[in-house]
Amino acid sequence: MAPASHHAKAPRPPRLAAGIDIGGTGLKVGLLEFTAQPRLVAVDVLEGHAREAPAEALDRLVGAAYALLEGQGIDPARLEVVGVGCAGLVDVPNGILRTSPNLPTWHDVPVRAELGKRLSRTVRLVNDAQAFLAAEWRHGAAQGAANAIFLTLGTGVGGGLVLNGKPYRGASGLGAEIGHLSVDLDGPPCSCGNRGCLELFVGRAAIERQAVEAGLDDERGISPARLADRAREGDARARRIFEETGRRLGVAIAGLVNLFEPEVVVVGGGVAAAGDLLLGPAEREFRERSMVARQRPVQLKPAALGPQAGMVGAALLAADPGSAG
Amino acid sequence: MAPASHHAKAPRPPRLAAGIDIGGTGLKVGLLEFTAQPRLVAVDVLEGHAREAPAEALDRLVGAAYALLEGQGIDPARLEVVGVGCAGLVDVPNGILRTSPNLPTWHDVPVRAELGKRLSRTVRLVNDAQAFLAAEWRHGAAQGAANAIFLTLGTGVGGGLVLNGKPYRGASGLGAEIGHLSVDLDGPPCSCGNRGCLELFVGRAAIERQAVEAGLDDERGISPARLADRAREGDARARRIFEETGRRLGVAIAGLVNLFEPEVVVVGGGVAAAGDLLLGPAEREFRERSMVARQRPVQLKPAALGPQAGMVGAALLAADPGSAG
Repeated sequence: MAPASHHAKAPRPPRLAAGIDIGGTGLKVGLLEFTAQPRLVAVDVLEGHAREAPAEALDRLVGAAYALLEGQGIDPARLEVVGVGCAGLVDVPNGILRTSPNLPTWHDVPVRAELGKRLSRTVRLVNDAQAFLAAEWRHGAAQGAANAIFLTLGTGVGGGLVLNGKPYRGASGLGAEIGHLSVDLDGPPCSCGNRGCLELFVGRAAIERQAVEAGLDDERGISPARLADRAREGDARARRIFEETGRRLGVAIAGLVNLFEPEVVVVGGGVAAAGDLLLGPAEREFRERSMVARQRPVQLKPAALGPQAGMVGAALLAADPGSAG
Repeated sequence: MAPASHHAKAPRPPRLAAGIDIGGTGLKVGLLEFTAQPRLVAVDVLEGHAREAPAEALDRLVGAAYALLEGQGIDPARLEVVGVGCAGLVDVPNGILRTSPNLPTWHDVPVRAELGKRLSRTVRLVNDAQAFLAAEWRHGAAQGAANAIFLTLGTGVGGGLVLNGKPYRGASGLGAEIGHLSVDLDGPPCSCGNRGCLELFVGRAAIERQAVEAGLDDERGISPARLADRAREGDARARRIFEETGRRLGVAIAGLVNLFEPEVVVVGGGVAAAGDLLLGPAEREFRERSMVARQRPVQLKPAALGPQAGMVGAALLAADPGSAG
């Protein structure tokens, strides 16, 4: 037996990664420590990038990441890797954002190379819904599921699939675009080129438009979160908007359940913060419509990690690329 | 070195399986020899089972299988296994047909046990679209594809998925129900419990109903095949029916391509025998609508094995269960 070392060592600090979430409405950056349960130690949210040039948005993100490290008194040398989740069609092998319906100025942006240059770190670029999936599947609402469907309802509607115990995004990572499944074949045109896409019915813009039409906005405008507050206070018009939105979400979920026979469907994103106002009607509708759900137990669950899921998942995927996608 | 045998042996006959296809319109049974390319040596088609009790239909199928063996002068002892593809929700592990929108008298029918008793052979029961997939993936239009979508347009509309190099049908084999994906959220009710299902727009009944409404039937009624003949002869009303049907098929394919980013989409079944009349408009529509198809090459192909695919695939899956799902 080898003798135990008599030299006491300082405990090694946990691994550290940055997670970046580039969505249609905001930019988020967080620092994640890999303790037993990964832990976000600091977060910054940057607004107003929708019409900004991609290079400027990336500059701001890099500045915010270094500011977080400094603010926490963390030696920047500890930052191992950077994970980025981005809304839109991501060419994962090449680290390029091809196109994004909700980021109109972003076309063929080599996000991995550009951030790698600015940060001198290994960067991994994935689709934002893929990052959401990684977080919710490993540490959230779908832990241990072999077959699961993930939906993020935000400015856009993102999708993720775990099939036979593995994330699935198609041959090169462009698939799982659940938001661009048409539920209304002659419905309104979508910026993606399709018509009647789920995103047009259950995304943030759809909710806000209906709220404005119902006169539910004020000088501050109206957000899904504020509309949910009004519904909870008993406003029937606000409740109806979530009911109809939930019903349409339920139609899409019924179709997805008929396709995938999953154990669980996880719904997150800003719009889903409405909770049962939205998920109640969605659950009633999909259970009524799906013959597969009548044969097998299928759970519908709200996301467990809230608005942090995208950052957490992007950091997880960068630190451990084989782990979840 | 061992001496070569001096006893000439009769060549061993190829392995023999029976393939059965239980669809919404007909029952098919075929004998398949496993030569380098599997070969159907005899086929029988039985009609009119839609309102028959399942036990009677199974009796007739067993009789037809033995008649085929006798007619070909084949020793029944050579029949190794029997594969059955059946329209509807199939509980594959237990060999039970749970329910089938187009077989209203079939509920919780233990097809595997019932046929096994009658035939004293190992029987494997799968979904008919799963059998179609096995045949077209191993020996037909999607050979070698790692990610492929399969659609059979018949009385019902069946679906199959190959994802990451493996067939996918959900946790217990009930998934891949592409025909019961809603493309029209408030559309007509489907017998499955959903509304606006793809099957209601591109199945045999939809084509025939439109043909009758357009006055294109005669004393013999109208079938998709005869309607296709009229369209090829230049009948504008018949062409329009296939165009509109193809367009709706294209809407569904666009959504599926956005979900799966496949290399190939294979369309078969009786309705697809209309060929380019149907697949031309479907191809135009899905290419216009799918953002994923604009980024990546996706082929749309007619099935290669025609109406025999279901029998061939069922026999393949029975003879070699690990091979294709």
